[in-house]
Amino acid sequence: MTKPTGIVALLTDYGLQDPYAGVMKGALLSANPEARIVDITHDIPPQDIREGSRVLSAARPYFPTGTVFVAVVDPGVGSSRAILGVETDRHFFLAPDNGLLGFLDRDGGIRRIVQVREPKYFLKPLSRTFHGRDIFAPVAGHLSRGVDLARFGPSVNRLTTAESVAPRKAANGDLQGEVVSIDRFGNLITNIPGELLPDARDIRITVGRRNVHALSRSYADTKKGDLLALVGSTGHLEISVNHGSAHKTARIQRGARVLVTRTRG
Amino acid sequence: MTKPTGIVALLTDYGLQDPYAGVMKGALLSANPEARIVDITHDIPPQDIREGSRVLSAARPYFPTGTVFVAVVDPGVGSSRAILGVETDRHFFLAPDNGLLGFLDRDGGIRRIVQVREPKYFLKPLSRTFHGRDIFAPVAGHLSRGVDLARFGPSVNRLTTAESVAPRKAANGDLQGEVVSIDRFGNLITNIPGELLPDARDIRITVGRRNVHALSRSYADTKKGDLLALVGSTGHLEISVNHGSAHKTARIQRGARVLVTRTRG
Amino acid sequence: MTKPTGIVALLTDYGLQDPYAGVMKGALLSANPEARIVDITHDIPPQDIREGSRVLSAARPYFPTGTVFVAVVDPGVGSSRAILGVETDRHFFLAPDNGLLGFLDRDGGIRRIVQVREPKYFLKPLSRTFHGRDIFAPVAGHLSRGVDLARFGPSVNRLTTAESVAPRKAANGDLQGEVVSIDRFGNLITNIPGELLPDARDIRITVGRRNVHALSRSYADTKKGDLLALVGSTGHLEISVNHGSAHKTARIQRGARVLVTRTRG
Repeated sequence: MTKPTGIVALLTDYGLQDPYAGVMKGALLSANPEARIVDITHDIPPQDIREGSRVLSAARPYFPTGTVFVAVVDPGVGSSRAILGVETDRHFFLAPDNGLLGFLDRDGGIRRIVQVREPKYFLKPLSRTFHGRDIFAPVAGHLSRGVDLARFGPSVNRLTTAESVAPRKAANGDLQGEVVSIDRFGNLITNIPGELLPDARDIRITVGRRNVHALSRSYADTKKGDLLALVGSTGHLEISVNHGSAHKTARIQRGARVLVTRTRG
Repeated sequence: MTKPTGIVALLTDYGLQDPYAGVMKGALLSANPEARIVDITHDIPPQDIREGSRVLSAARPYFPTGTVFVAVVDPGVGSSRAILGVETDRHFFLAPDNGLLGFLDRDGGIRRIVQVREPKYFLKPLSRTFHGRDIFAPVAGHLSRGVDLARFGPSVNRLTTAESVAPRKAANGDLQGEVVSIDRFGNLITNIPGELLPDARDIRITVGRRNVHALSRSYADTKKGDLLALVGSTGHLEISVNHGSAHKTARIQRGARVLVTRTRG
Repeated sequence: MTKPTGIVALLTDYGLQDPYAGVMKGALLSANPEARIVDITHDIPPQDIREGSRVLSAARPYFPTGTVFVAVVDPGVGSSRAILGVETDRHFFLAPDNGLLGFLDRDGGIRRIVQVREPKYFLKPLSRTFHGRDIFAPVAGHLSRGVDLARFGPSVNRLTTAESVAPRKAANGDLQGEVVSIDRFGNLITNIPGELLPDARDIRITVGRRNVHALSRSYADTKKGDLLALVGSTGHLEISVNHGSAHKTARIQRGARVLVTRTRG
């Protein structure tokens, strides 16, 4: 059985300008003053479940065994959407059942799922607009100090799977994906996993009006200012510029199509 | 007597782009390496004492007993404004005496107030521009490890109360308040406490050119995209849009008037 | 010998919108679950080594003895640039050898420098784009729990010194510096150390088209709205506005020239 260590990792769309993330931490510490809280990010675009899921999925392998992940991107707060607690072979997860945890279904490793609904672990009065503070935080506090997952509600068999973010594969082998995120450095992060790519030299990658004709291994492989493509740190195809911003250079927005074509072979 | 637990909660207008909040944490840990520091927010609008006070007042009930709150929104740094240390029935507070802690006077629970001026707890040399680092941080460190409040300076009887942010009540029972904050989701947060509102169905809420004719209980109570009003997570009236942004929909800025009219009865 | 305390202070250009800083913390906690992580800032302008160095240099004196500093502003990630671990009389530092730690050479206090290259402390597979996660974080984790610096690689004798950011001194004693940073309050921070300034009343400071004719001791020394100059919290000349923004008032950008002239004597 996975044992919580007191480390709690937060991912929300609350931002840091408002006090929501901070208040959530206060409520969490009220339930477990020994919790050690780590922010993955609070800047998931508001209500963007798919992006929250992508980021959480990419981050979790790097956290210690026993970490409790709390993910709150929750446009349905106050509706009848369920809240799930999940135990995997290494971690615990708390999140609304809206697809945020869909990647767990794909990747395996799920041991137990419960529907969190035992009100004795919730704050009172329970608001209908801020479950991060009133439900997720105290439940995470209790979970991180060792309260068994079964205490929070009944077992369930399944969770809502995420919307598909997989690229499409054409009959001729071409891959069509999209830019799912643009980071602070202007790197265009796509939904195309590195393992689907053809051999590095037989490749043409098209994004907007720009083409890249090779896969690089690092930003430093090309001249400064050149557009390049590589398999980035999440294992997906990225379009970048050495010492620059692909976002500015190629004038590409999030959601833009990315086409990968095999040029030979 | 309230006992500090080592948890220190910070609220400032320093932002996170500059290193001020980080340096303050370094100075705090130098005085108490065991302190556990939590950010409420560092994004209070620069020098906006009233907004800092509102946010701190809304956040504090959710923090554990024994938390030391450090609030630095301090346009008078380097002037003769005093610095206060306050003990309440559950918490400690450090802040400039400029109204930031005015809510404590209203809400009761104050046990002791001291004027912080014992230089042996300050950094040397003491700057006249960064008391967050040179006074608040080390004093918070020592306070959080159990140094008695009386050590930091003499007792005083009162603190500066905040500017009034209460809504006005007209003779006919109408309430006139204002939008005091707009959060990341575009929710318009007003200064009108939920308990002053008339019955949910006898109500008209006017903000800018838009009217809302009912109080909802949650965002999910209306159709996606509809403007709605509810009592939000701080207990005040909020104008929101289900799955959207009231800020964008109603084109309202911070400071806009909000009128609540009883339609029947 | 300096002893690590488990406190790890991070400075990067990763921003907080992306999950890079959060993932780095996960990897660090995986190597040392007891580490106590503090953010100095993650908002160094992308790839701006000089600004990262300036901020780290100003922040470090305020952190406790035994702190491990991890600084990642690393445009050369994936190239042959080295990664250094440095022990000083009070602290440890991990950073790419690109000038970020140049101030240590100037300020003295270096005890040991090693080139970090022992792969057994790195994550596997090792990416070529995210060494913050794959090298800096796990090495910082191990270092902060007491692994000797020598374990991470061979001793080296020198580190890359930073580009010079010193002001120029003319034959007539005038100083010519520049605005190196503009903070959230609109303070214009220059590279002119306070100790180089002439006597406070014999001075004219020119920035853009504006002149200031005296050195103030604090923001509160002048009328609200007036432009003023003082030696700020990092020990350097700053141009400010009491209760306002010098950035907005004087319409000055980062990089603008600042001239200090002696008016008498």
